[in-house]
Amino acid sequence: MKAEIIATGTELLLGEITDANSPYLANQLSLLGIDLYWISTVGDNLGRLVEVLQRAWQRSELVITTGGLGPTQGDITRDAIAMMLGEELTVDCGEEQRLRSFFSKRGMEMPQSNIRQATCIPSATFLPNPLGTAPGWWIERPGLTLITLPGPPEELQQLWENECASRLRQKLSGVVILSRVLKTFGISEAKLGELVSDLVKSSNPTVATYAKSDGIHLRITAKADSEPRAREMVRGFEDQVRTIADSAIWGVDSDTLQGATGRLLTEKALTIAAMESCTGGLLAATITAVPGSSAYFKGGIVSYTNEFKIASGVDKFMIDNYGAVSPEVAESMAHAARERLSSDIGVSITGVAGPAPMEGKASGTVFIGIDDGGRRRVISRTLPGNRQRVRERATTMALFEIRKTLLGR
Amino acid sequence: MKAEIIATGTELLLGEITDANSPYLANQLSLLGIDLYWISTVGDNLGRLVEVLQRAWQRSELVITTGGLGPTQGDITRDAIAMMLGEELTVDCGEEQRLRSFFSKRGMEMPQSNIRQATCIPSATFLPNPLGTAPGWWIERPGLTLITLPGPPEELQQLWENECASRLRQKLSGVVILSRVLKTFGISEAKLGELVSDLVKSSNPTVATYAKSDGIHLRITAKADSEPRAREMVRGFEDQVRTIADSAIWGVDSDTLQGATGRLLTEKALTIAAMESCTGGLLAATITAVPGSSAYFKGGIVSYTNEFKIASGVDKFMIDNYGAVSPEVAESMAHAARERLSSDIGVSITGVAGPAPMEGKASGTVFIGIDDGGRRRVISRTLPGNRQRVRERATTMALFEIRKTLLGR
Repeated sequence: MKAEIIATGTELLLGEITDANSPYLANQLSLLGIDLYWISTVGDNLGRLVEVLQRAWQRSELVITTGGLGPTQGDITRDAIAMMLGEELTVDCGEEQRLRSFFSKRGMEMPQSNIRQATCIPSATFLPNPLGTAPGWWIERPGLTLITLPGPPEELQQLWENECASRLRQKLSGVVILSRVLKTFGISEAKLGELVSDLVKSSNPTVATYAKSDGIHLRITAKADSEPRAREMVRGFEDQVRTIADSAIWGVDSDTLQGATGRLLTEKALTIAAMESCTGGLLAATITAVPGSSAYFKGGIVSYTNEFKIASGVDKFMIDNYGAVSPEVAESMAHAARERLSSDIGVSITGVAGPAPMEGKASGTVFIGIDDGGRRRVISRTLPGNRQRVRERATTMALFEIRKTLLGR
Repeated sequence: MKAEIIATGTELLLGEITDANSPYLANQLSLLGIDLYWISTVGDNLGRLVEVLQRAWQRSELVITTGGLGPTQGDITRDAIAMMLGEELTVDCGEEQRLRSFFSKRGMEMPQSNIRQATCIPSATFLPNPLGTAPGWWIERPGLTLITLPGPPEELQQLWENECASRLRQKLSGVVILSRVLKTFGISEAKLGELVSDLVKSSNPTVATYAKSDGIHLRITAKADSEPRAREMVRGFEDQVRTIADSAIWGVDSDTLQGATGRLLTEKALTIAAMESCTGGLLAATITAVPGSSAYFKGGIVSYTNEFKIASGVDKFMIDNYGAVSPEVAESMAHAARERLSSDIGVSITGVAGPAPMEGKASGTVFIGIDDGGRRRVISRTLPGNRQRVRERATTMALFEIRKTLLGR
């Protein structure tokens, strides 16, 4: 199946935002074994959009448009498709009702312009969008499918996962492509590449590595004539990778480090609490991004001043003698978090997020403390990158160290 | 000048990497006042690339290709351009010498395959690339310019800044384009669109709205024959928008809500502290994302359990009687944060981030408390979207309410 993405929006052509939808869809199509041949980006101009749609309609078997479904006059994707197909847009009563109730549930009256989002053409069926006001469209002709998706990434992804992926999977016959991603931390991409260099040479399954913010990911992809066969091929390769690098692997596929850590805490029926300074709440926010985290996360303290550190139980002597950014204070913070919140494990982060140095310590200096009641330890690192990168990396490191503690390594 | 970008690389069509070059070039072109009409992304396929090049050659006045200049057989941009123009690729002696010395300086012998990077066609002149082995090409015809740039972003940007931008500026006569973004919160896109509907009809300056995670942005863009004139036109429109919607505007251009709020706190020499439950530290993490925030942020408490709320000074009676997710507890949390951390302002968030309801309250229910010492108030909302969206939206709302408090509204 030859696919094409049409990304719309003048803001993309002005470089004001980066198109996150096309890489997401490209990746999803590749997982389905669908070949993506073109991505075309056009602005909010009816003539040019119709032209691009016509070309896609001629040369591709699957066309996906993103964006341009908002309520404003600049949102012209519906108009352009109607024009290309020579069909008329009319308001759909059911969808209008859904839209009005979307607003009334929020205690608002629907602005008149939103009625555009309830319009449809005879060829199209709606793809319901529970997260927003713009439903997608699904248009089907012999040998040709056109899917119209809204621009906000979380709405687009939700629609893709719930409405589009399974329908497309049904249309594909014979070839099954399966992928599995193994996620590692604490090992460099070059090092991992060396360890699995024999596997990387294989053409089916294929093995590739990717540097991500939560470590190095390794993807195994197998192509076979049946799902069990593809699954077996992937499993064979996964076993080999695990023999080589198991201790670095913390999760698979859509696992997040906070999710994997949360599962371990739940399994062991243990609780955790955090005290952080340079990450300013990012560790707590990351842990609590997981639904159900209240079962194991007791709470957090963002100790941005020495006074509040001391009020929260950190040893004043340590701060006075070693400075707030020190292994000694990291250890005391982890201990205080555990005591103050009566948790099984206390974790702490203190450091210099930058851009300026602090207490004579360079930007990127980070200390992570862990107190599990039995043992207290501190990990010291100098992290590269800007303020945001240092904070994210310190948070990832802390999660990985919690995981290590839980596994008794 | 009508411009088009052609981004090449199968990795882009597999969603393995995000194209950072097109947004960069799009932004650079907009600063030069050049209209970008299309971005076309194609894989490493000679037939399809030649086809896309031919179309661009016919419809655009400036064509920029990115990627495909490496030494491997998959790097076919040079071949495709030569084929489109019916010209022959030959090795350029001077460039071959430069390449060989690039390697010998690094104590390496040049791999034979790199010789491809020293090839050229009669129409093209080289754009020297000091950072890598792939020079760019500049091809000039009456009314048409074709620029070929390497894929690695730092090489591309270096070539653009040093070789391309000034040459293009010379070709343009007189036109200056200026943009200004006004950022709003608390008003829907449709509502804002209605308020400024007269301005939206204008063709110069143009006015457009965009829904972003921190509210609705409104962009004014003016085209004029001089910078002062363009600036004046933008200012005239900005004044009109401010007359209509000033109270919703919290910042301009690259401002962030946390940055704008931080500046206000600094100006007024006030400090702030936070106690949050459903956002789990996200508010503190967002406030402290700003460098220098330690000057006004005293710290935060992530009160994920009722016990820790009470230990941090929240009124137990309120929790027992109204539940942890209630306006009463939001107020008590804001007060406790202010007291506990001795700050001028205390802010709180309590709510249900979802996906499951809590205490019989629906996912999306959020209460934000503010205590500025003089007055305490609570804002209640039901926010749409998934867990992540609710947490982000609640954080944005809290920042906006802090700002309102600081402005005495």
